[in-house]
Order: sequence, then structure tokens, then C-alpha cells
Amino acid sequence: MVSETVANPHEESVDRHARDMANAIRALSIDAVQKANSGHPGMPMGMADVATVLFRDFVKIDPKNPSWPDRDRFVLSNGHGSMLLYAIHHLLGYEDMTIEELKNFRQIGSRTAGHPEYGHALGIETTTGPLGQGLANAVGFALAERMMNARFGDDLVDHKTYAIVGDGCLMEGISHEAIDLAGHLKLNKLIVLFDDNGISIDGKTSLATSMDQVARFKAAGWNAEHVDGHKPDEVKAALERAQTSDKPTLIACKTIIGYGSPKLAGSEKSHGAPLGDEEIKAVRQKLVWESEAFELPDSVVKAWREIGQKGAASRGEWEKRHDAAARAAEFDAFVSGALPGGFEKAMADYRAKLVAEKPKLATRKSSEATLGLVNELTELTLGGSADLTHSVFTQTKNQSPVSAENYAGRYIHYGIREHAMAAVMNGLALHGGFIPYGGTFLTFADYMRGGMRLSALMGIRVIYVLTHDSIGLGEDGPTHQPIEHLAMLRATPNLLVFRPADAVETAEAWEIALTETGRPSVLSLSRQNLPTVRDDASQNLTRKGAYVLKDTDGARDVTIMATGSEIEIALAAADTLAGEGIKAAVVSFPCWELFQEQDAAYRAEVLGTAPRVAIEAASGFGWERWLGDKGRFIGMNGFGASGPAPKLYEQFGITAGAAAKAARELLGR
Amino acid sequence: MVSETVANPHEESVDRHARDMANAIRALSIDAVQKANSGHPGMPMGMADVATVLFRDFVKIDPKNPSWPDRDRFVLSNGHGSMLLYAIHHLLGYEDMTIEELKNFRQIGSRTAGHPEYGHALGIETTTGPLGQGLANAVGFALAERMMNARFGDDLVDHKTYAIVGDGCLMEGISHEAIDLAGHLKLNKLIVLFDDNGISIDGKTSLATSMDQVARFKAAGWNAEHVDGHKPDEVKAALERAQTSDKPTLIACKTIIGYGSPKLAGSEKSHGAPLGDEEIKAVRQKLVWESEAFELPDSVVKAWREIGQKGAASRGEWEKRHDAAARAAEFDAFVSGALPGGFEKAMADYRAKLVAEKPKLATRKSSEATLGLVNELTELTLGGSADLTHSVFTQTKNQSPVSAENYAGRYIHYGIREHAMAAVMNGLALHGGFIPYGGTFLTFADYMRGGMRLSALMGIRVIYVLTHDSIGLGEDGPTHQPIEHLAMLRATPNLLVFRPADAVETAEAWEIALTETGRPSVLSLSRQNLPTVRDDASQNLTRKGAYVLKDTDGARDVTIMATGSEIEIALAAADTLAGEGIKAAVVSFPCWELFQEQDAAYRAEVLGTAPRVAIEAASGFGWERWLGDKGRFIGMNGFGASGPAPKLYEQFGITAGAAAKAARELLGR
Repeated sequence: MVSETVANPHEESVDRHARDMANAIRALSIDAVQKANSGHPGMPMGMADVATVLFRDFVKIDPKNPSWPDRDRFVLSNGHGSMLLYAIHHLLGYEDMTIEELKNFRQIGSRTAGHPEYGHALGIETTTGPLGQGLANAVGFALAERMMNARFGDDLVDHKTYAIVGDGCLMEGISHEAIDLAGHLKLNKLIVLFDDNGISIDGKTSLATSMDQVARFKAAGWNAEHVDGHKPDEVKAALERAQTSDKPTLIACKTIIGYGSPKLAGSEKSHGAPLGDEEIKAVRQKLVWESEAFELPDSVVKAWREIGQKGAASRGEWEKRHDAAARAAEFDAFVSGALPGGFEKAMADYRAKLVAEKPKLATRKSSEATLGLVNELTELTLGGSADLTHSVFTQTKNQSPVSAENYAGRYIHYGIREHAMAAVMNGLALHGGFIPYGGTFLTFADYMRGGMRLSALMGIRVIYVLTHDSIGLGEDGPTHQPIEHLAMLRATPNLLVFRPADAVETAEAWEIALTETGRPSVLSLSRQNLPTVRDDASQNLTRKGAYVLKDTDGARDVTIMATGSEIEIALAAADTLAGEGIKAAVVSFPCWELFQEQDAAYRAEVLGTAPRVAIEAASGFGWERWLGDKGRFIGMNGFGASGPAPKLYEQFGITAGAAAKAARELLGR
Repeated sequence: MVSETVANPHEESVDRHARDMANAIRALSIDAVQKANSGHPGMPMGMADVATVLFRDFVKIDPKNPSWPDRDRFVLSNGHGSMLLYAIHHLLGYEDMTIEELKNFRQIGSRTAGHPEYGHALGIETTTGPLGQGLANAVGFALAERMMNARFGDDLVDHKTYAIVGDGCLMEGISHEAIDLAGHLKLNKLIVLFDDNGISIDGKTSLATSMDQVARFKAAGWNAEHVDGHKPDEVKAALERAQTSDKPTLIACKTIIGYGSPKLAGSEKSHGAPLGDEEIKAVRQKLVWESEAFELPDSVVKAWREIGQKGAASRGEWEKRHDAAARAAEFDAFVSGALPGGFEKAMADYRAKLVAEKPKLATRKSSEATLGLVNELTELTLGGSADLTHSVFTQTKNQSPVSAENYAGRYIHYGIREHAMAAVMNGLALHGGFIPYGGTFLTFADYMRGGMRLSALMGIRVIYVLTHDSIGLGEDGPTHQPIEHLAMLRATPNLLVFRPADAVETAEAWEIALTETGRPSVLSLSRQNLPTVRDDASQNLTRKGAYVLKDTDGARDVTIMATGSEIEIALAAADTLAGEGIKAAVVSFPCWELFQEQDAAYRAEVLGTAPRVAIEAASGFGWERWLGDKGRFIGMNGFGASGPAPKLYEQFGITAGAAAKAARELLGR
């Protein structure tokens, strides 16, 4: 293929080389969507020219080594345009992205899911689809790069993060949170290409927005400029300027959605439905694309494969630098995410110390104390909070704040931006080199549900420290008191939700959260002080999900189950009942998901056959699973109220007296 | 009190009149926080000067008639500064905001909850606290004003919406969504005062943001300017300019948090904790404020009460215009929010028609058809969608889009902004004159949880149309397939969650949602077609929450419960079992909350005593409530997948065959 400039149906300045490479993306995209009879052709058609320049001249990847640590990261934030990514991966020669996979677009078991899914195919850096998440993930990637660079230097870490985003990504609130943080932290290796096609599902974006995006990004401390997305030279020049910027860069690429479709170009009708056989024929004619469906000219394949060869060369050079680096082993250990050898023993010793000392602390304070140890044991942990550092206690003394002047820091002030915190943590975890954890109040899980769900769906190690986890937060009132949040989180697949009862269980929960590499965790922590209730720390009992904390002498009359701050109440109720000759066992239930994973015999042993009472200062929704038909729940039946915590517990009847009464009633006494 | 200019401890330009009025706010705030030993003094101290000018010279309210329809709306978006609002209400003479209430700040049962709560005290327009919500509510108020104005003219509707917002409100993503929409719709009667104190909980906002807020708002189509928030003349001049603007206005008021505190002014330490008796003494000295705690100089009270008198005069003039207006009765009917007389009958007739015609439609299409009728019956309904109009089918032919040129429209293109949609709908509902409903995919409830929870907490009539409510959405895959969302919503207090099975139940759900004035509703609707399963529409059976859809001849062997799209599967399973001589009743379960509210006898009758199987293409979390110990759940155990819907149902074992098998196993056959 000769890179001569020829007349293009649409734009004279487009060289034929780039045009054919881009048209290959277009053809594969429309054919795959047509075959699936489902999907989004408009975006790949519109962004094919931009993506071609981006990959041809800039993105540093090696398709044969898709997880090379110093590769550039590419994020397709408007994930509905997934065929753009799949087509590019096929063209670049990713070994798993065969033409068969493209033919199986959107079918069960294929690598080519409707939206790009992390882990489904090589080189997919993150799962996207819910709009704006990818942009915030990209901020996490770019931040991780700067932070790893600060630790290991340019020789080992020096890569860019590229993201393509759509109108939807930029309308979503999370985009504001993410770009404000990126601008503040001067993430100059973050380069975002905005598919500025002026079309969303309902029609012209002018139906709903008048935002000047370039001005908006400038206000957030970004470079930002407009280019014509169908003029490769303009795109290339802008990308070149971005390479040496001291700020993150937005390139707003004016594009035509469905570019190449005689009937549908520029219309929302090209967005989310197959074009139809007839229109596909017309597109082929218009684009002067003569190959049949799923077939590609050799010259085009060759041009795309050359990109990979460049990437392989870059990787080779990096390998040499890596092998020569004094700290190569340390770098590899960071990237592996492995905890240090002595971790388990140190945590066991710490538990023993806690059992001996029996501190009376809020579990948010116990968490801080645990982190004090953890953050000494490993440098992988990267703390943060959505502006509640002194309430959620996520910062330890060896964690200096991350800033544009201090990427070596280990604590991120995420600002009052819960949603971005979750999604940026996802990006940090996906990048490698860090175990991100971040704190806010449990209620504000509401604000970051979108990001939390993706942690769970991707199965990545992100840890949410969610404090003030009940009406126990007191005077701030019902807007700040979680009720349904534990149920919401427990109902979420692949997420561990811990509600520890004391300092020991808090340390245990941290240990599990840090070692579970395939799923995120939530630590639900109290504002109020709680006594240490565990006498035995010889094993991590939280790992069982639930266990008998206080057994009875002889057969139980009743089992009282509770979590977190309500364990104290359960123990008091058991004492009261003991005084009346009623034998009540107390089961601590710090993690439903782990209990569910125990064998049936263990579960039966813990739950027992006696009538059951459960206490949790939250909605009882879901507790029937453990209570059974005859159980009784002591908790919240509606929203909370503003008042001192002890009075609220009285007011809402979450007391040892109420639990004892429920037990008596169950026993008919 | 003479309005002479005297030396002020801090600013010479502050006239004594305004200074004393502002200091009254400061004194009440610090004293109430101190007495409660809980609360946030820094914000009221910092914003007292601004708020004094705002209320003294601009806000049109009549404390004796706090719900006068044409009053200005005031929203304290940074609700932790609640004492600012309570102090002002006390000073203005709201009859319920007595000095005793201020002394009971943050106590159970007081009107002075930790954060302002709608319905707890007169004149509180909305519940705030979760940051950014109030700003988005204010956009809803301001939009409602323009829309009511378009319907009834300046004589009846001509008021402003004022909001105070903090750094947190403007960092939250929802602020982006809200201001973009407000700028686009040119809501020029919206005036936002930004408490630009440069401090958040963790310290200086420069820890986390470098945003140029004025430039940002300008990019969104707002007027925006900086003023010194401690110079009343500057604040007043800016507010005057805002009165005649053709755009919404942001006034960034440079303030000092904790203004007046010698030790803590300008520090985050004044934000969220009592100042302490000693520092309060020092504040009094510094501010030259000689009154004891909770006492006020008569001259100050008089100055504040005069504001109310001005407001009363405005209201009097409005009453005259109202009484003379040709369409006064129609206006009153709009404001009342009452549905027209014939509504119930029309809905009953419609149900009868559906039973006769038995359409096979996706419930999202049934919803559209129902709305076709509803939107003819009443003009209160105000549709909208977060850019999924042609997927969620929320727009009917008599609804033209709302725009800056057409406030008379009845359909809002909220853009790709779910969170703002929820919070703006809250504002629209609170304003009066509208029943807002808005649509997106059920999965994206995640993005608007913050706003939805406040609909429920406030108990207002907002209707969420959430479609594509299961793996039945098919190829878009797990990012778009709700799993835990029904559990999350059902666990939320005071929210009705409907998952109708067919056209009849969809109409019934709409009827209930529209008539339930004290709580919001969710309609969870299918993407895929569903047959009409109801034979009898003589009464609204959805109102019972659950009912026997298909009874058995003689005693049941098994009860199969299902909702929505899985009713079809339940009926097929019952047929299969019937062929084997097993009598299976089918219970349709469109609304858990309403079923819970039925008497025990009815519930027992519906659930029966036979073993139970439940089918729902979602997480089974919570179903134990209805299944009991021996029940079996057929549904999802993890995330979904990308593929055609029918194949996904097979893949995940949500089939009539699986349900029949579960029934057989329960019966030991």
C-alpha cells in the first residue's frame, strides 16, 4: 500500500493509507453489527479516522504481549462503540480476536460482548458501557502511571493513557468529578479524544446541552482544542501537541456519526441499530470498499500489523531497560500486587495483641489502627477519601498526600467526589501497582454505586471504607443514616460486605479484603465506640462469614445474630436472658457472602436449630435468609432521624431489651 | 436601628444594620451548635452577610403564608449549614421556628434536624445534606417556575429560585449535570450563591481542586462573577444584576468560613464541630455582639420582621391578581396536584379494554400506551428521559419538548444525566404544578440513587420509569443488565416498586403511582414482549401488591410466584405441572410494598400453605420473605452476559422447565 494522497469521497486531505485503515474498522463494525442484528455502528464509523491516527502513530502497545506493564493504556469510554475496539484488536493481530469472534459479536460465550468487558479478551483494559466510567478509569490509569513513575523512574514507567469519550460520557456528572481531579493533579499523560458528533440517542445533543466543552475543560485546568475528526493531519497534529503537554489534554474531534452511510450519516438512526443489508451495500460503494463482509485486503492488514511491530520494538527496548534496572525485582513485585511474605503472620500477631489489649474503639478507629500496620507492611496500599479523612480515618502517618508536586504520595484527596473516587480506584487497581482503598460515609455509597458495581463486575481488588454505618451516626439525621445500603451492597454479586463488630473483626476484614484479589470489598464501620468482644484470635473467624461468638452451656434456647455495632446489644440481650434461665448463643455475622460459601454442615452448626433473633440497625431486607420462617428481626423499618445516637437506638427499639423480649416471645415465655 | 455606617471589626464597608442582622444569624448558629454539642457553625458564620443581603433585599416570601404559590424558593444546598436557615426562619418570624426549637437543634422530634428536612418545619422547600442535590432541586424549582409561567402568565407566576451552594455541591458530579441543563434551558430566574470559602472538611480545597468555577459556569451558559461575600454592597449589586439576566446566574462569594471566630476563622476546624464556650465568648467580643445565648436585640428582630412585612405586601398584591384572574381556578387545580374527577373511571375503562384486546407488548410499550391516555386525562404529568426516549417510551404525542423557547412543553430531554433527572424531578414535584416522571434503564438507577432516595425520604410524587429490567435486555450485556437493583429499590423505605407482568398491571401500576401523593414509585418494565395474562380487570389488583393470578381447582400442591416478565414462565410451568397432575397456583407479585401493607389474612390466603417457588430474572436477595424456609428461587446468582435474551434465559436456567423441576423436587416427585 502506497501512502499517496488521492481523492476521497468526503475529504480530499485524507491520505489513502489512513482512509483504508479506517474503512477496515468501519466495514468490520457494520458487518458484525449486522450479523448480530444488534449493536452500535454509528460511533465506530464516526471515529474510525481518529482511532486510526491514534493507533497508527501514537498508542504504544504490543499485541503479542498485551499486558506488558509499560504499554500505553487505551480506554473506550463510550463502550457501546465496542466494535471499534474489537475491529482494531483484530486488525492489530491480538491472537484471541479472530474473525470468528467478530462474527460472534454479542453472542453468549464470545469475547466480543456488547460492551468491552475486562477479562473477556486480551488488551481490554477496563469494562465500559455505563457512560463516563471509562473516562474516570482513565484518570486512574494516568494517575497510576505518574505514581509508578515517581517510584521507579522513566526507564521503567513512561506511558500514556488515551481515552475516547462520547457526548454521554461528558454529560454524566462523573465526568466533572474526574476531569477536575485530573486537571488538579496535572495528569499530563492523559489524552482524551472526544467524539464530538453532536448526536445522542434522542437526536441532536442540542436538545439537552449547550455546553462549551473546550471552555469547560480549560476551566478544569486542561489543554483543550477542536479538530476535524475526519482530517487525520489535524488529529495527528493535536495528538503531537498533547505528547509534550504539562496538563491533561482534551481533543474535541468534530465527527459525523455513521460516517460513510449515505442515508444515516449524521443521524441518531445510525447510533444503535444495524444499518441493514442495503445500506451496508451503499456504504461500501461510498467508501470505495470492495471487500466482502469480514474480509480484508492484505495491504490493510499489513498496515495495521506494522503498528504491532513498532510496539514490539518498544517493548523490547523496555525489557532491556527493565533487565538492567537495579530495582527490577521490586518493580515486578509492585506490578504483581502480591503482599509481602510476612503479611499473614503479622496480621495474626496483631489480632493476638488486640485480644490481649481489648481496645474500646469505633470500628472506623480500629480500621485506622489496622491500616497503620498494613501501610507499614506493604507499599501497595494507596489510601484516600472523598473529603472525610478525619471522619473515616483512612490516612495513616506514613501516607503523604498525592499532588502534582508529589506523585510519590500514598494518600489521595479525592475531593467531594464519591463517584470518581470509585471509578478512579478501579483505574488504579486495573493499572497495577496499587491496592486502592477509599473512604466515605456508607450512605454515600449511593453516589458511587455506578463505580462500585463495576469493581464487582470486573472482579478487582478495590476496598471501600464506609463508615458512620447506621443511625449510630446520630445528629446528622436521615440523609446521612444508611438504612437500605447494606442490603443494596449484599445483593450485589461478587462483592464482599464486611460489618465487623470490634477491633479484631476489623483487622480480620482488612486481611481478607487485601488478600482477595478477585473481588472488591466493603468495610462497613461504626462511628461509635465498640468494645472488643473476641477472646480468641487464633484464627481469622471473619473468613467464615459468621461464627458462634458466645456459645451456651448445653443446648441453645435461642440464637441471637448480629453484625457490627449491634453485637454489643446481642451480648447484652444474651446476658439478660441468661439471668432468666434462657440460653442464648450469640452469632457474629460479619460477612454474609463468606458465610454463604461455607459448607452446609458449618452453616447449620452456626445457625443452630433454636429460634433466631437478628439485630442490625438497618433495613431487615434480606435477613429472612438467615432468620427462617420463625425468626424475628430487630432493626429499622423506615428512615432514621436526627438526634444523639443512644437516643435513636432507644427511639427505634434497637435495644437489648427489645431483643430479649423478641426471644421470649419466640419461646412463648 | 439606624442604618448608619460604622466601623466594623472586619470590614469598614459593612453597614451596621446589615452587620447586626448577620451577627444574629452567627450568634444563634454558634449557640445552637454548642448546646447540641453537634453541628456545623462555620458555614452560617461565613455566609451570614450574604444571606442577610439576600433575604433583606431580594427573597420574596411571607413567613405567615409559607406556601404561597408565587413565593420565591430558597434552597440551602450545603444543608449542613442548617442553622443558617433555622436562624433566618426564626428571625423572620416563621411561627413554628421558635427559640425553643433552636435550643433543641439536632434533637429527636425537633423541627431543627441536623440537615433541613422537607416537612419538618414551615418554609423548608427541600431536604438537603447529600451535597449537590439542593442545587439540582433548585434547577427543578426554576424550571417549574418558567413552565408554570408559560401556562399562567406573569400575573400568577413570577418568582425566583435562590440557592446557596458550597464547595462540596460544586465538586459533586450532579452539579455538572444540573448546571448544564439550567444553562441550556436559560433558567434566568435561578440565582446561585456560591460560598466560596476555599475550605472543605479535609482542609483547603486546593488539596483536591483547581477548578475555575466562574469559567466553568460560563462554559455552561451562565452569568458568573466573583464578589466579596463580606461586602454587602458587592453582594447586593451582583444580585441586582442577576434580577434582569437572560441566563442563570452564579455569584461566587468569597467568604471566610467561621467568620468572627478569632481562632478558627478561615480554618476547616470551624466547619463541623462546636466552637467551645471560650471561643464563643471571643466571637461575641470580636463581633461586638452583647446579647446572651439565644437572646436577640429588639432592633435586630424588628429589622428581620420587616422583611416579612414586605413579603406579606407582595403576597397581598398577588392574591388580588389571582382573584381577578380568569384562570384562577385552573391555576389552583394545577397547584393542588389533584387528578381530574374522571381519572379513576377512565383508568377502569382502559383496563377493561386491555382485558378485551389482550395486547402482546413489552411493558415499556404498555407504559407508553397508558401514558397516551394519562397525558390526555391530565396536564399535570411532565414526561422526560435521560436520553433514552425511544427506548423507554416516555414521550406521548401530545408532549412537545421543553426548551428555552418552549416552556409550555410537557417533555424534558434531561440529557445523559440520570442523577440530575432524579433531583430535578424532586424540585419539580416540590414546586407544585407537576407530576414528573422520567425514564432510563433500570441499571442506571445506580447513577441516580442519591436523588431517588431523597424522593422517598421527602415522600413526594415522583415516578421513575425504569425499563430493560433484566437480562431480557439481551445483547448489551452485564453492564446494562440489572441484577441487584430490584432488591436495592425494594429495600429503600417509602418507595413503591412495581414490576408489572402485562398491559393491565402496567396500567394499574401507573394508576397507583399517580394517585400516591406521599411516596415515589418505580415502574420496572420489560424490553421484551409479554402477553396479557389478566382476564379480569374489574378491580385494580396491583393495589393488593400480590394476588392469585391463576388458581387451582381444589387445594394447591405448589404456589409459583413471579413478577413482570417471569409471569409468562410461571404460567407455563403451572401448565407443565398440570399435565403431570400437580396443581400449581400462580401468584403475580407486582409490588412487594403494597402486599406487605395488606392484612395478614389476605397475605396468608395469597401465599397459601403449599410449598413455593419464586421466579424473577434478578438476584434472589430478599425473596426468602415470601418463599419461606422451604421455598425455591429461580433467578440470577451473579452478573448477566451479552447475548440474545431468549438464550440468556436458557443459559441462566430461568425457564418453565427449571421452575417445574423445582416444584417437583419440593414435592418429592
